Amino acid sequence: MSKVLKIEAVFFDLDDTLYNSTLMSQSARKNAVRAMIEAGLDIDEDTAFNLLMSIVKKYGSNYNKHFDRLLEELSVPSNPKLIAAAIVAYHRTKFAHLRPFPDVVLTLLTLRKNHKIGIITDGKKVKQWEKLIYLGLEHFFDLVIINDKKTRHKPNNFAFKKAMKKLNFKKPEKIIYVGNKIDTDILGAKNAKWISILFDFKKMVKKEALAENQRPDYIINRISEVIKILDLEQTKLADI
Amino acid sequence: MSKVLKIEAVFFDLDDTLYNSTLMSQSARKNAVRAMIEAGLDIDEDTAFNLLMSIVKKYGSNYNKHFDRLLEELSVPSNPKLIAAAIVAYHRTKFAHLRPFPDVVLTLLTLRKNHKIGIITDGKKVKQWEKLIYLGLEHFFDLVIINDKKTRHKPNNFAFKKAMKKLNFKKPEKIIYVGNKIDTDILGAKNAKWISILFDFKKMVKKEALAENQRPDYIINRISEVIKILDLEQTKLADI
Repeated sequence: MSKVLKIEAVFFDLDDTLYNSTLMSQSARKNAVRAMIEAGLDIDEDTAFNLLMSIVKKYGSNYNKHFDRLLEELSVPSNPKLIAAAIVAYHRTKFAHLRPFPDVVLTLLTLRKNHKIGIITDGKKVKQWEKLIYLGLEHFFDLVIINDKKTRHKPNNFAFKKAMKKLNFKKPEKIIYVGNKIDTDILGAKNAKWISILFDFKKMVKKEALAENQRPDYIINRISEVIKILDLEQTKLADI
Repeated sequence: MSKVLKIEAVFFDLDDTLYNSTLMSQSARKNAVRAMIEAGLDIDEDTAFNLLMSIVKKYGSNYNKHFDRLLEELSVPSNPKLIAAAIVAYHRTKFAHLRPFPDVVLTLLTLRKNHKIGIITDGKKVKQWEKLIYLGLEHFFDLVIINDKKTRHKPNNFAFKKAMKKLNFKKPEKIIYVGNKIDTDILGAKNAKWISILFDFKKMVKKEALAENQRPDYIINRISEVIKILDLEQTKLADI
């Protein structure tokens, strides 16, 4: 009789895994640019948006003077009304978009019945916690690990090891990690020898096009598919 | 036949004149403290609130690490979850309170028909514009003057003179200023020889208890009373 080796935990990435971070940022920046134009900035929307994106790329997304730099680049004198219009539009749009993907809450509630669940994410600790709170998910997880040091960012296996230590888990093959990026989430899970699930909500990835060492164990388009994979893995483990 | 000398403009202070800034800040900080306690901070609400207020007083209201300092003062190790809980509760409460006093919009719409209206306020330019946008008042005014230099803060008459110059007004006695503070708003208006109205929404001030040089021309408890005063002043000017 084979011993049933239960999957012990499911960990998730945060941005673009539990909510649509890409859509949030893009919509927020588009609406910020539109608000500046409505408040009097004389430029077409696409030009301003593309310039803003290049500024975000240059200074990073946590920099807080993107709109000041935008006016500078356009040789527009400093204008607090335009800046304020952009900031308010940005925040209003951002908070409207800070909602979990539709099936996230039900999936997490289901998983919680028989498994530990957790978060492993890279970013500023306070900012990532703020997102969890706005998402209404701050009480769901047994463990939240936020890497604020760049050297520990995924695919480094620091956080994966830390998670196992904190929860006193010995067997990496009994832990699932779900994330949306190959080069960070999937490689990180693979480095840690966890089961890896690529959440490809943009439906852009073809498994066969990936090199062997980049290939996730599973690719899903909806978070709820994690439940099915759990059943599958349960069967596999039972067969060992 | 006496010439009718019309009141030309009505200027307003922003914080605690067009919206309840005191209630907003106090509620936001109380809810921030409650959120920290709910997230695990072991302290009673009043103690934490009073400590937070002393930190706000020490570092100023535009400082952005009040909650970090609060944990430090309590010898609690840095805790991003608690900080995030406080920030989110603070912002949610703040935005819920950023609404004009009930009669402000109708009063401004009425005034706009026959008068110039404006804002003279002290503070950071972008922050004050953000408030006007959240209040939905950013398009109402003919002129918005925000003093960000401390040396120009009310009761200095810099902004009052600037307002007259910008709108090409020659007669200060034909301009009304409405504000909630004697030592800044009323003295500022008096320095500029404008008609001064104290908006005493907390109903704390007794005119007869004030020294002659601090006494506003009018004291009101609701912003809509400005309309009545305008009619009165109209009559007075017509009598000259």
